[in-house]
Amino acid sequence: MSFDPNKIRLHIANDLQERVVVPLTREQAHYLGNVMRRKESESVWLFNGRNGEWRCELLAVGRKGGEALPVEQSASQVDTPPLTLFFAPVKRTPMEFLVQKAVELGVTHLQPVLTERTTNRRMKEERLVSIAIEAAEQSERLDVPVLLPTISFPELLHDLPVDHLLFCDEDDGMNAMADVLSCQDEGGSWGIIIGPEGGFSGAERHALQSDERVIGVGLGPRILRAETAAIAALTIFQSTLGDF
Amino acid sequence: MSFDPNKIRLHIANDLQERVVVPLTREQAHYLGNVMRRKESESVWLFNGRNGEWRCELLAVGRKGGEALPVEQSASQVDTPPLTLFFAPVKRTPMEFLVQKAVELGVTHLQPVLTERTTNRRMKEERLVSIAIEAAEQSERLDVPVLLPTISFPELLHDLPVDHLLFCDEDDGMNAMADVLSCQDEGGSWGIIIGPEGGFSGAERHALQSDERVIGVGLGPRILRAETAAIAALTIFQSTLGDF
Repeated sequence: MSFDPNKIRLHIANDLQERVVVPLTREQAHYLGNVMRRKESESVWLFNGRNGEWRCELLAVGRKGGEALPVEQSASQVDTPPLTLFFAPVKRTPMEFLVQKAVELGVTHLQPVLTERTTNRRMKEERLVSIAIEAAEQSERLDVPVLLPTISFPELLHDLPVDHLLFCDEDDGMNAMADVLSCQDEGGSWGIIIGPEGGFSGAERHALQSDERVIGVGLGPRILRAETAAIAALTIFQSTLGDF
Repeated sequence: MSFDPNKIRLHIANDLQERVVVPLTREQAHYLGNVMRRKESESVWLFNGRNGEWRCELLAVGRKGGEALPVEQSASQVDTPPLTLFFAPVKRTPMEFLVQKAVELGVTHLQPVLTERTTNRRMKEERLVSIAIEAAEQSERLDVPVLLPTISFPELLHDLPVDHLLFCDEDDGMNAMADVLSCQDEGGSWGIIIGPEGGFSGAERHALQSDERVIGVGLGPRILRAETAAIAALTIFQSTLGDF
């Protein structure tokens, strides 16, 4: 999709259908009116993850909220192919960055996993959700990934919700991720798991390595931070089996 | 390389040779002694981009600096294959993040380029250099990428310092980057160019598209922020023609 810096896209919860007025939140009205200086009768593009994207006419932009009128559907709904990022919460700044980049790179589910060495055990979930929504708005996605409730590492392997889990192993001698994926077919659902700053514990690594649903892959000769490994792995997945 | 969280690696300017004492800066001594609680006779690993990595014994860690004695070479020098990232300076936080990630992903040269729509025209170069050094220390690199003096977009194309320049074009219908690179051989030197937040101007895009040294590539169906596009492009390069 080509990029139009003047096009403002916002995510709303309501259904979108032609000529059925939808409300805008106070924050959306503030952003449109005060930050971006949009006026009544100008356009805004809305999406809700179900009804595609609609060009809407601004009917009201006030202090307490606003209203918009869907005029024409500018894109029909396309569902992002499922891809889950399992991640141990890391420090606030890199975690927020990771969530933003994961949304841009087409993740559909974000699953926090508490591991033995996870030091950040209190995530601000509301803040991560708002970062995910903003990233979806800016990246021209038609849906917003779901932030799932945090689970523990044993729960993860007990009820693994994907068919194939890619594990970026820091061991020497792992096969390069792109080479591993080029031998796989696209069948089944995929996930990528990334450990915390200090890596997985020995027991966790052993559990991953001995699970037949888990595929170990390498990400080159340098040591990558947790969030860098996640972004690199998502990129290689999208570039081989995914939608790049 | 497998990751040892207890191994502290630091970059120094001095030559490293067996049993020739080297000085540590005040900041390095503070980090070793006060932050990481290392004491005299414990080990630290030093590299300078020329003499490989050396396990050194701490001789002194004080308020004004320190000293270390190279005991044995733990890795011989390996030069990172040349790869230049040409980037328009973006806002401070994403730019610092980009520099950190580019170092982890194996860039050897960082070349800031002022484009028509570049809004951040004053970079803190010292700060970016210290981020690059820290990222090299943590990623187990044996060298630190060079931050080159800022140039303008016309200067870039006039004196292009690489044989092939990958341009991540936001136009619809670009061929996927991995597909384009799979048809290239590794010969010659490579660079990747990324625009500012608002993208390249029409004239700049035309100049890139009509230059035969420039190869346009696509990065999937979503709109990526400048720093995300850079990280994704570096990952795909390393994963196809590079050292992953």
